[in-house]
Amino acid sequence: MILRMSSLFVRTLRDDPADAEVPSHRLLVRAGYIRRAAPGIYSWLPLGLRVLRNIEGVVREEMDAIGAQELQFPALLPREPYEATGRWTEYGDGIFRLKDRKGADYLLGPTHEELFTLVVKDLYSSYKDLPVWLYQIQTKYRDEARPRAGVLRGREFVMKDSYSFDVTDEGLDRSYEAHRAAYVKTFDRLGFDYVVVKATSGAMGGSKSEEFLATAENGEDTYVSCTGCDYAANVEAVQVRAPQPVAYDDAPAAHAEQTPDTPTIETLVDHLNEKFPREDRPWHAGDTLKNVIIVLKHPDGTREPIAIGLPGDREVDVKRLEGQLEPTEVEAFDEKDFAKHPSLAKGYIGPGVLGEKNESGIRYLVDPRIVEGTRWVTGADVAGSHVIDLVAGRDFTPDGTIEAAEVRDGDPCPNCDGTLHTARGIEMGHIFALGRKYADALGLQVLDENGKLVTVTMGSYGIGVSRAVGAIAENTHDELGLVWPREVSPADVHLVATGKDTAVYDAAAKLAVDLTARGLTVLYDDRPKVSPGVKFKDAELIGVPTIVVVGKGLVDGVVEVKDRASGEREDVALDAAVEHVVRVVTVPLEAVTGNLKG
Amino acid sequence: MILRMSSLFVRTLRDDPADAEVPSHRLLVRAGYIRRAAPGIYSWLPLGLRVLRNIEGVVREEMDAIGAQELQFPALLPREPYEATGRWTEYGDGIFRLKDRKGADYLLGPTHEELFTLVVKDLYSSYKDLPVWLYQIQTKYRDEARPRAGVLRGREFVMKDSYSFDVTDEGLDRSYEAHRAAYVKTFDRLGFDYVVVKATSGAMGGSKSEEFLATAENGEDTYVSCTGCDYAANVEAVQVRAPQPVAYDDAPAAHAEQTPDTPTIETLVDHLNEKFPREDRPWHAGDTLKNVIIVLKHPDGTREPIAIGLPGDREVDVKRLEGQLEPTEVEAFDEKDFAKHPSLAKGYIGPGVLGEKNESGIRYLVDPRIVEGTRWVTGADVAGSHVIDLVAGRDFTPDGTIEAAEVRDGDPCPNCDGTLHTARGIEMGHIFALGRKYADALGLQVLDENGKLVTVTMGSYGIGVSRAVGAIAENTHDELGLVWPREVSPADVHLVATGKDTAVYDAAAKLAVDLTARGLTVLYDDRPKVSPGVKFKDAELIGVPTIVVVGKGLVDGVVEVKDRASGEREDVALDAAVEHVVRVVTVPLEAVTGNLKG
Repeated sequence: MILRMSSLFVRTLRDDPADAEVPSHRLLVRAGYIRRAAPGIYSWLPLGLRVLRNIEGVVREEMDAIGAQELQFPALLPREPYEATGRWTEYGDGIFRLKDRKGADYLLGPTHEELFTLVVKDLYSSYKDLPVWLYQIQTKYRDEARPRAGVLRGREFVMKDSYSFDVTDEGLDRSYEAHRAAYVKTFDRLGFDYVVVKATSGAMGGSKSEEFLATAENGEDTYVSCTGCDYAANVEAVQVRAPQPVAYDDAPAAHAEQTPDTPTIETLVDHLNEKFPREDRPWHAGDTLKNVIIVLKHPDGTREPIAIGLPGDREVDVKRLEGQLEPTEVEAFDEKDFAKHPSLAKGYIGPGVLGEKNESGIRYLVDPRIVEGTRWVTGADVAGSHVIDLVAGRDFTPDGTIEAAEVRDGDPCPNCDGTLHTARGIEMGHIFALGRKYADALGLQVLDENGKLVTVTMGSYGIGVSRAVGAIAENTHDELGLVWPREVSPADVHLVATGKDTAVYDAAAKLAVDLTARGLTVLYDDRPKVSPGVKFKDAELIGVPTIVVVGKGLVDGVVEVKDRASGEREDVALDAAVEHVVRVVTVPLEAVTGNLKG
Repeated sequence: MILRMSSLFVRTLRDDPADAEVPSHRLLVRAGYIRRAAPGIYSWLPLGLRVLRNIEGVVREEMDAIGAQELQFPALLPREPYEATGRWTEYGDGIFRLKDRKGADYLLGPTHEELFTLVVKDLYSSYKDLPVWLYQIQTKYRDEARPRAGVLRGREFVMKDSYSFDVTDEGLDRSYEAHRAAYVKTFDRLGFDYVVVKATSGAMGGSKSEEFLATAENGEDTYVSCTGCDYAANVEAVQVRAPQPVAYDDAPAAHAEQTPDTPTIETLVDHLNEKFPREDRPWHAGDTLKNVIIVLKHPDGTREPIAIGLPGDREVDVKRLEGQLEPTEVEAFDEKDFAKHPSLAKGYIGPGVLGEKNESGIRYLVDPRIVEGTRWVTGADVAGSHVIDLVAGRDFTPDGTIEAAEVRDGDPCPNCDGTLHTARGIEMGHIFALGRKYADALGLQVLDENGKLVTVTMGSYGIGVSRAVGAIAENTHDELGLVWPREVSPADVHLVATGKDTAVYDAAAKLAVDLTARGLTVLYDDRPKVSPGVKFKDAELIGVPTIVVVGKGLVDGVVEVKDRASGEREDVALDAAVEHVVRVVTVPLEAVTGNLKG
C-alpha cells in the first residue's frame, strides 16, 4: 500500500498544541495522528488509526495464539447487571450514566466483567465446557475526573479485555499464567520498555494482580524495584515490612511539654533540639508521629473522616491511599470539618483523642512502622504542646494499620535486605485473578464431575490499546519527533523524493511500487513543491523507522537509507534498494523480545 | 485457521427465541451468532463477530479502492457542533443524550457530518486539498422508538459512514458517482439481492439521494419499480404525477345534500349510489375527497394539527408522510383535539372550514391528484351532510400539496406510461448529495483558484454494517437455517467428522490442517460424542456455504462435499479433497457481480 503525502489526510504542525502536557501528546497532535474532540476524547486521523489498528492486530494475534476467543459486547449497557454486582453505585462519578427515551437506566461500559459472566452463564453449564477464555477489543468509557496527556488517560478509549473461566483455583492459576505469558509476548512485539509489577486489585476485587508498565518519565504511576531481588511493585501495592515489636519496659513515662509555635514537623524538631536535646543523637523528623486527618468520600456519597498516623519524615501519598481504597476517593479535611470536631487541636493532634472509642470518634489507622514499643513525639491535643516518649501499645492503641505513607527511593525491600528504587511508568496492562466475586453475584455455576453445582472462578485481563499509542510514543520518541517500533509504525518505509527533477519522482514512484509489491506499506512524500528540509522534518516528526531518500544521489545511481532511531545513514545502489529495504524492515524474531526490564 | 466445535464459544438452540419476529433474528440467535443485551442492543458471539468483520473488510477494501481514507471519530460527542447545525434539537427523542461529571452536555453520535466537517476545516484551507473522501467504520447510537428484528434495527450498531468534500457542484457529482459505483461493488461482493432506489433526504437535507435496499419480504421499507422504465424509488420518495388541470366551465354548482349516517367512505358511496345515482357510472370511493386531520409533533415539542385531503380510495401512509417530514413525527388527532376545534364535524369534515384562513385555522394540504377543476364529494362540515360537485380551485383552495397518500401496486409510473410494482426491502446503504448545509453551518470554506473563500459542498454515504449481517441472513436463509454468501461466511468450510472411528477423526483433522495451509478457515466439528444427525443439523443452521463430511465413505477413500445452498452432494476422493474444496470455495470474480436487480 502506498500512502501519498500529497493526498494523505494529514497536516503537520510546527508549534506545540497549547493543551498538551507531555511529549507524546504534543507529537501525536503535531504529526497529525490525533485531534481532540472534547476533554479526554480524541479523533484518530489516518496515521493514528493505522498505529491503533497495528497494536490491535498484535494484541489479537497473541490472544488468539493462546486460544482465547474474540467476541464483542455493546458499550451501551443496561443498569441491572452492574446493580447486581454493586458497581452501578461503586463507580460513583467515574462512569457515564444515561437514560433512554423510556426512562430506563444505562451506562457506558467501563469494563465488562458482568457481561462476560452472564454470557458464559447463558451458554455453558458443565465443567466440561471449561476453561474458556474470551476477549474483546472494544471502545470503553470512564468519566475521569482529570483526563490528561492526550490518549494516555482518555474518557473514551479502546481496550482489550479478556476473562478466564475455570472450575478450580489451580485452573485459574493456569489461566492467569497463560495470559501473563501472552502479555509478555505482546508487549515485547510492541517494542517498548516495560516492567511487570505487583499491583492492588482496586475496585475489581480478587487476590493476585500484576501491572505491565511502560517506563516513562511522565508516567502517572510510580513503581519500585529492588536492587537485591526481583521484587517490583506499583507503589500503591508496596507492603511496608513492619519492624519487630520493641521492648519498652525501661521506657520513661510519657510526658507532655510546652512546645509553643510548633505546628509543623520542622518547627517541632528545631524546638526539641533546642529545648529538649538528646545525648545520643539529635531529634529528627522520623522521631515524631504525624497525625493527618483526611476525609474518605465513599461511592454512596457519604463522607467519613479518618486519622492517619505516620512517621513525621513521610507524607501521605494520596494516590497510594486511593489505590487501596478504590472506588472510595480522598478529600481534604477542611476548616468546616475542624469546626465540627472541637477536640482536634490543629497542628497538635495526638492519639489521645483519636480512634473510634476516643473523644473525636475518628477511626485511627497508622503506618505499619508504628509497631508496639516504638517511642514517639506527637501532639498533646492542646495548641502549643506535644507529648514526648509516647509508646505505641502502652500509651495508645490504633484501630488498625494502613499503607498511606509515601514510598521513597532507598526504602528497604519488603522481601530481602536490598533497597527499593523508584521510577515512573504508564499502566499498559493489568491482570487479575478475580476469583468468584462476579460469578457469585451473578450466579454463574456449572455442574462439576460429580454433578454438583460449583461456582466458577474468573480472571480478568486488560490491555489499554489506545493508551498504548501514547505510551509507546512517550517511551520511544526523541527530540525530533516520534520513533515508532516496527510492528506499530503506520508504514514500513517513509520514502522521500526531493528536488524538482522528474527523474527523481519517476525513480521514487517505481521504488514505491516495487516495495509495496513486496508487501510493505510505503508512506511516499511525493509533494513536488515542498522543500527537502520540510520533507525531512516531516519524516522525523512522523517517525516511520526507515527513511529512504531519492534525490541528488540518483545521478550516481544511489539512494540514501536512514534509520530514524539511530540517525545512521547509508547509500545504497538504486537497483539493490528494494532487497536492502526489505531486509532492514523485516523484524528478526529475537529483536522483538527482551524489552521486559528489571 | 481452525475453529473447533468442541471448544468454540457457541451453543446452538433448537427452539426459536421468544422475542424474535423475523427469520434472520431467530436464526442468528439459534445458531449462536448474537445475543440480546438490552432492547435493540446486541452482543456478538465469535461466529457473529466473524461475519461482522468480514462485511467490514469488504466495505473497507472497496472504500480504499476508490481512494477514500479511513479515520475514526469518537462515539461520545460534545453538544456544540450538533447545536450549530440544529441537530441537537432536531433529533428529538431519537438520540441518546447525557451529561458528564461537570454537567457538560454530550450525545452518542448517530451520524458524524458535523465532526467530519470540522476536521476538514481544521486541516485543510485550499481548493488544492480537495476533493477529499473520508470514512470511518464505527459504532453509532440511535434511541429508536421501536428497535426490532435483532440487528436489523438496533440502538447500538456499526456503520460505515463516508463524506466527500468538493469545491464545485460538478465535483460533488463525481464524488457521488464514485461512491455509488463503490457501493454497487460492495453489495455485489456481499452476495445478496438488492435494488437501488430514489430516496428522500429526511433530516440530512441535500438534493440527490438514493438507497440500496436488500430485497426481503420482511423489510421495513417499501419501494416501487416501474414495469416500463428504470424508475425505482422508496415509497417515501415517490412523487405522484399530478394530472393536468380539468376544465370546469360546465360544472354544476356545488350542492350540499343530506347523507345521514355516512361517516365512512364506504357508507357514503353506498348512500350516493342509492340516493344520488349517476347515469354514466356508479359512484366509487375515488370520487370522494377524504380529509384526515393528524398532528405533527415537531422536534421542539410543539404539536401542530394539519388536514390532509386525498381521494377517498386511498389511506394516509404515515411512514411515507414521516419520511418527508423527518425529524417531525406524526401523531393521531384525538378526542381532546377535536374538542378544541368545534368547527370540525367528525366524519363530515370538508374544505369549507380547513386552511389557514378558514374557521379551523388548520393548514390544509392535499394530494397532488386534487388539481384544479377536479370535482369531488366531500364533507359539508355538518354531521350527516356532504357536498357534491365541489370543484377544486373554484370552490376551495388548499394551502399546498403533500405526498401522504399510500402508493399502490399498479399505480402509474411518474416517468413513463408503465405501472409501478411494489416490493419490500431493508435499507443497507444510503447516499446523499448533501450540498453546503453543514459546511455553511460550521463555516467550512477554502480558498479557490482566485484566492476567494468559497463554501465546500459535501456528500454523505452510509452503509449499515451490523444491519448487513441481519439483512444478508434475511435475504439468503432457507427453512433449514442460515446460508451465507462466501465473502461473508464465518468460515470457508464446515468440516464434519461423524461416528466414533478414530480413523475418521484422524483423517478429518489432517484435512482441516491441509485446508488451513491453503489459507482457508475451517469450522471443524470434532465433537466425538455428538450424533451425526445433530452435527448435520448444526451445519445447516450455522450456514457455512460448503460442508465436507468425513464419515462412512472413508473406508472407500471418499469424503462428501455438499453445497449448503443447493443441497447438492458429491463424493470426492480423500486425496483430491483439498484441491477440490479450494476450487469450490474460491469465488470467481464474475460470480460476485450482478446481484443488483431491476
